[in-house]
Amino acid sequence: MDWTRKDLLDLQSLSAEEILTVLDTARQFKAVGERKIKKVPALRGKTVVNLFVEPSTRTRISFELAEQRLSADCINFTAEASSLRKGETLADTARNLEALNADFIVIRHKAAGAPHLLGRVLNAHVVNAGDGAHEHPTQGLLDLFTIREKKGSFEGLRVTILGDILYSRVARSDIWGLQKLGARVTLCGPPTLVPPVFTELGCRVTPRLEEAIADADVINLLRIQHERQRKGMFPGLGEYTSLFGINQERLRMTKPDAIIMHPGPINRGVEVDSEVADGERSVILEQVTNGLAIRMAVLYLLNGGHVPPAEVN
Amino acid sequence: MDWTRKDLLDLQSLSAEEILTVLDTARQFKAVGERKIKKVPALRGKTVVNLFVEPSTRTRISFELAEQRLSADCINFTAEASSLRKGETLADTARNLEALNADFIVIRHKAAGAPHLLGRVLNAHVVNAGDGAHEHPTQGLLDLFTIREKKGSFEGLRVTILGDILYSRVARSDIWGLQKLGARVTLCGPPTLVPPVFTELGCRVTPRLEEAIADADVINLLRIQHERQRKGMFPGLGEYTSLFGINQERLRMTKPDAIIMHPGPINRGVEVDSEVADGERSVILEQVTNGLAIRMAVLYLLNGGHVPPAEVN
Amino acid sequence: MDWTRKDLLDLQSLSAEEILTVLDTARQFKAVGERKIKKVPALRGKTVVNLFVEPSTRTRISFELAEQRLSADCINFTAEASSLRKGETLADTARNLEALNADFIVIRHKAAGAPHLLGRVLNAHVVNAGDGAHEHPTQGLLDLFTIREKKGSFEGLRVTILGDILYSRVARSDIWGLQKLGARVTLCGPPTLVPPVFTELGCRVTPRLEEAIADADVINLLRIQHERQRKGMFPGLGEYTSLFGINQERLRMTKPDAIIMHPGPINRGVEVDSEVADGERSVILEQVTNGLAIRMAVLYLLNGGHVPPAEVN
Repeated sequence: MDWTRKDLLDLQSLSAEEILTVLDTARQFKAVGERKIKKVPALRGKTVVNLFVEPSTRTRISFELAEQRLSADCINFTAEASSLRKGETLADTARNLEALNADFIVIRHKAAGAPHLLGRVLNAHVVNAGDGAHEHPTQGLLDLFTIREKKGSFEGLRVTILGDILYSRVARSDIWGLQKLGARVTLCGPPTLVPPVFTELGCRVTPRLEEAIADADVINLLRIQHERQRKGMFPGLGEYTSLFGINQERLRMTKPDAIIMHPGPINRGVEVDSEVADGERSVILEQVTNGLAIRMAVLYLLNGGHVPPAEVN
Repeated sequence: MDWTRKDLLDLQSLSAEEILTVLDTARQFKAVGERKIKKVPALRGKTVVNLFVEPSTRTRISFELAEQRLSADCINFTAEASSLRKGETLADTARNLEALNADFIVIRHKAAGAPHLLGRVLNAHVVNAGDGAHEHPTQGLLDLFTIREKKGSFEGLRVTILGDILYSRVARSDIWGLQKLGARVTLCGPPTLVPPVFTELGCRVTPRLEEAIADADVINLLRIQHERQRKGMFPGLGEYTSLFGINQERLRMTKPDAIIMHPGPINRGVEVDSEVADGERSVILEQVTNGLAIRMAVLYLLNGGHVPPAEVN
Repeated sequence: MDWTRKDLLDLQSLSAEEILTVLDTARQFKAVGERKIKKVPALRGKTVVNLFVEPSTRTRISFELAEQRLSADCINFTAEASSLRKGETLADTARNLEALNADFIVIRHKAAGAPHLLGRVLNAHVVNAGDGAHEHPTQGLLDLFTIREKKGSFEGLRVTILGDILYSRVARSDIWGLQKLGARVTLCGPPTLVPPVFTELGCRVTPRLEEAIADADVINLLRIQHERQRKGMFPGLGEYTSLFGINQERLRMTKPDAIIMHPGPINRGVEVDSEVADGERSVILEQVTNGLAIRMAVLYLLNGGHVPPAEVN
């Protein structure tokens, strides 16, 4: 299929076919990362602004490398030193970037919906790099890519997401994507962080770890953001680990071919033990590699690139 | 004419002919920004260091994009993490950058005259990106470019600059440039910020808004830098707005084809209302687009580029 | 000789022949910096991550320019905004960077041995850009390059290093390199900062300036890091200057062709007077220029480049 959307804002509004188009395109770009010369000219002379109003190193670097490998010119605009601090509105900042002929705005923002606002007021392509607790669509896509690579297809696949679901944009993007592609999703964690309302999205919700991991093909461990955890919602770190941390013993309760995912950065000894994180069931570092391919694919498709990508071959 | 200066330090020392050469060259580069591939090879293999000792996002990004579109290699050197904080003098920092074979130093500094100092001690080309309350020549040039684009010529044109003239480097560069090209300049604002001494530069000075805007072809609203406004010199924000803020009602007191300019970032509801800022008389976003073209033109000319630019066509 | 090492971690483990190979290669790259187009395609499509966990402007910019001139894609990863602050281990950060297909990691870290750790766990090439008080091998190499350029050979050459030897990674790299190449090293400074144990490395150690500089061919002044000097170990700045600062008078006690080196940034009036720093015996700015050539050579060799560099000619 041809890609027709101007922006990548969320997975909720994408069709299964659109998601699969991104995954197929990313497969081509993953091969570029394994070449001696990791560069294609697809976005030469295009300008990408990375507008990271909420700090991020990992996602920003992944986007920045994706842009460089597509030969785009890229500019980093971070919150710290920005005119946003001089009281300028986000829409004005974005209009100014567009006036500089920016072709793409990659935005991370603490307010859910900020990328959608920009998508409406700008002609430039907008990519959501994480908006509040709403969505993180390129993370969702890289998770889907990794799962398909390991498991072949999504139909009937059981995926368990563990941790702070309530405040996780990664969980939301994963849920939308997985369900559109036919997987069954289980959510598990402390009841304060995994409220029953998620059953309305079609997920199974349980506070019992054993139940959540027993039949899972994929176990996705969310990062415990203990540096910004809400008091009163979250048990102590030690209690979380004793109830939900994945160690070797608990890994033995899972299906022998279940894979362990994590969006990173991992807290070793909290949500996952080192033995598990570094073990053969872990695909955590492959997720990082796949994230770069997904971001190249997204920028390529938004730019009007052909499917399959001619420039890659 | 051929360009012969090593540096761009101010508009005060440029001739009308030199200013027009920059504007003519920028017209060519503006077209580059509208292409699919927004890149020319004019500065390939040249190194530009953006030495922003005073923070700035907007101007730095404009320069950085100009450099990338000219295919230069560019390095950002900001005050926060710099050896300047280890007690190194500015001249030593600059000599070190030159020892790295930097071809251009783009400098923003809070001390008036800092770019001139560097221009004297370095062989590298120096571009003033704003020095204290002295000058901001690329902003002056982009204002002139925008005015010429909208009004055709400067002869007899009436330009009113509104706001904190005393501490504005933008105002100073505008005044020098406009007068050299034959425009008549009116300055208006609170008397503490628009002292009568400016009449000695040939400007009309008035604290009465109605008088200042009645016959103006161009109205340039300076940003109220309320985050660093001097106590005792400045009325409250509300008082400033009630006396000098431009809203729809006051816009009706102007000539029907008068244009509204602003160097940005704008304070909506302070020096300008949203209706005016986003209205059809506003050229604020075009100024941003033109700023990129001006900066490309300046770097191109300093580098010894031909006039008209061969590489652009 | 062909280069066979994956990483550049220190000078202690390099052979004299390996050091000379870097110096020979750097000579070719120094010529690139004098061209109109200062760029070669040697690292096109390669990714370099500058992982500066300890802040640095000078060394980072030198590496960044070296990378750009070799046509590499480069990413800056600084400590301030990094996932390291979220509790991620250094090895995990590095593994993540490698998962993004980084080909080179240039690391500065306050812990001695950090680059060696990364060298062991990564397939990517690791370059030590300064680790604690251990080594700063590219600074050592640029010092050697500068000395060879000025003095022709190392055999029997007398080099005096002045200042805070105990905590200086520059001194350690210089000592290893100089002795491997046949020079004789004298260390001089306050006894608390130049302990007698350095005689075990084969150096002459003396607290008497006159003795240290009388027969020296090269005098290398270390920077007094007064912003982080240990209390109780260091005399006052004034006392240091009166005992060890190099001024015109003391310069007259040296051999007439002795050269003055300094890794920068210099404290004018502390370890060196302006007359000496800017005088004809000073090679301080040439060291900066040579540092860029050394860093290009190191990246080029680690990447498997031919000796002599074919792409440079």
